[in-house]
Amino acid sequence: MRAVVVRNGRLRAVNDLPEVVPQASEALLRVRLAGICSTDLEIVRGYAGFEGVLGHEFVADVEDVGGEVDPAWIGRRVVATINIGCGRCAECLANGPEHCAQRTVLGIHNRDGAFAEYLRLPVSNLMPVPEAVADEAAVFTEPLAAALRIREQIAVHPTARTAVVGPGRLGLLVGQVLALGGTEVTMLGRSAASLELPRYLGLHTGLAVEYADNSFDLVVEATGNESGFEQSLRLVRPQGTLVLKSTFAGASTIDLTKLVVGEIRVVGSRCGPFAPALRLLAEDTIPVTDSIDAEYPLAEAEQAFAHAARPGVRKVLLRP
Amino acid sequence: MRAVVVRNGRLRAVNDLPEVVPQASEALLRVRLAGICSTDLEIVRGYAGFEGVLGHEFVADVEDVGGEVDPAWIGRRVVATINIGCGRCAECLANGPEHCAQRTVLGIHNRDGAFAEYLRLPVSNLMPVPEAVADEAAVFTEPLAAALRIREQIAVHPTARTAVVGPGRLGLLVGQVLALGGTEVTMLGRSAASLELPRYLGLHTGLAVEYADNSFDLVVEATGNESGFEQSLRLVRPQGTLVLKSTFAGASTIDLTKLVVGEIRVVGSRCGPFAPALRLLAEDTIPVTDSIDAEYPLAEAEQAFAHAARPGVRKVLLRP
Repeated sequence: MRAVVVRNGRLRAVNDLPEVVPQASEALLRVRLAGICSTDLEIVRGYAGFEGVLGHEFVADVEDVGGEVDPAWIGRRVVATINIGCGRCAECLANGPEHCAQRTVLGIHNRDGAFAEYLRLPVSNLMPVPEAVADEAAVFTEPLAAALRIREQIAVHPTARTAVVGPGRLGLLVGQVLALGGTEVTMLGRSAASLELPRYLGLHTGLAVEYADNSFDLVVEATGNESGFEQSLRLVRPQGTLVLKSTFAGASTIDLTKLVVGEIRVVGSRCGPFAPALRLLAEDTIPVTDSIDAEYPLAEAEQAFAHAARPGVRKVLLRP
Repeated sequence: MRAVVVRNGRLRAVNDLPEVVPQASEALLRVRLAGICSTDLEIVRGYAGFEGVLGHEFVADVEDVGGEVDPAWIGRRVVATINIGCGRCAECLANGPEHCAQRTVLGIHNRDGAFAEYLRLPVSNLMPVPEAVADEAAVFTEPLAAALRIREQIAVHPTARTAVVGPGRLGLLVGQVLALGGTEVTMLGRSAASLELPRYLGLHTGLAVEYADNSFDLVVEATGNESGFEQSLRLVRPQGTLVLKSTFAGASTIDLTKLVVGEIRVVGSRCGPFAPALRLLAEDTIPVTDSIDAEYPLAEAEQAFAHAARPGVRKVLLRP
């Protein structure tokens, strides 16, 4: 089988992986389209210490099912949540798999991912894609759900002065999701070029350095690198809220004084709900396909990753 | 006038300060007793860049008043909140002076403090001390209010596995305040000696390093130094809450991965409400005087600060 793997800290396209066989309660998925996320780029740099098949944003067809699974699943076009819990611990039973200590995470932690011809996942992770949602939109379900996660964690006030630091892949989705309730959202970048698409999409934009300290009630850090925290902390007002969406390899040096003296609330934010993401995509409320910069076959994964890593580039897709 | 000042980054006792004259709306306070706090030690190390008379924990008598002040204040024994806002900005009018951008802070920012024979403060900052509260307890009003601030910011669940990292001056008050609602609070220290007083006061205790990752739902960081954040982040469970109480000079190097992936909520916490602190002191619910290690006259401030800086030492008082 063809796939894109990380081995010994190096990305490579391979074509010699063994056939994927679905286990009990699982489906065999044939990937239609997958998306490269900043977390994938960070994994290649060493984040999370992952080795195996990369990829966690995808849309696929159910080609077969393992034991104990309703065969009606076969032939359905699906997306899938990426956390697989033990299903037995108190955390799984009360809240689901996202914070199970024993969980695997698709293409991130102890489980082969979606940059491949096939993958397998429990059917409990699958969600059928409405016909109205094209593959090129459905592939954004996972990051759109991650953006929606913020709305599960905090109340986004329609009057809150709100900024997203980092107008990239995820930041752009976050900005659009936060603006849905009438909130004025300013997308902050480091270059004018990075702000063109956000402006085209109707968001306010600005250069982060041109904003005074304490300018915003709510700031979302979505730069994907360690420079973002300090800038975001500078911009949030005392008693404001700072949401962290970036996962990256490495440590940040932070002066915690403002956090304490300004009584800032910091909220880490990760995976979100798929059902509302699919609803928004079906309504075409969030024009995700404007973010697509390129598409590559699996065999050209190295070029695809290099493309995705260029400044200002947003979504690069892989098609098996 | 005698006082303890920081000048050019050095602490010294002086006796040549000019007489303090209360301005309009202010009271002239004669200090009865004052307490040294970890923030005072940090200021001497350069935190907040303060120069002037130190000290923000005190109990005093109103000796005189400035213009527009009811003379009935004269003779009252009082404590006082430490933030003085502009009184005109939206923040002051809506929420009070604690986060006014133009505020001064007693003995911390642009305003001479309480390690002196006299100080002046707006009468709106004063609160009379009930007769039942001795000077040696009243001097704890400010830090006890800071501990209570946590209960203004978050719901402290009676069933939450709760830890306070740093069983020192402030940590001990925080632990006692969090335990008031039936919550089991574990005070975590670096040495067995530091846990003797918390244990005597009826709190659970333990060595921080002996606890597994993710052991607590709620962790309060009160070490007063940069080592505390990393340890506290390690101990809080995914989706748990980490409250930061320490203010110190310098930056911390932090791996933000757990914060994001574990969706931790971090809450900076500073000054709190005086009225409930005085109620708790009047009821003798929080046995603060057990924390008093020594008392010095102002002239021996250098010895007092050296004493307060020793490991395991809690409250050192200054009596003018």
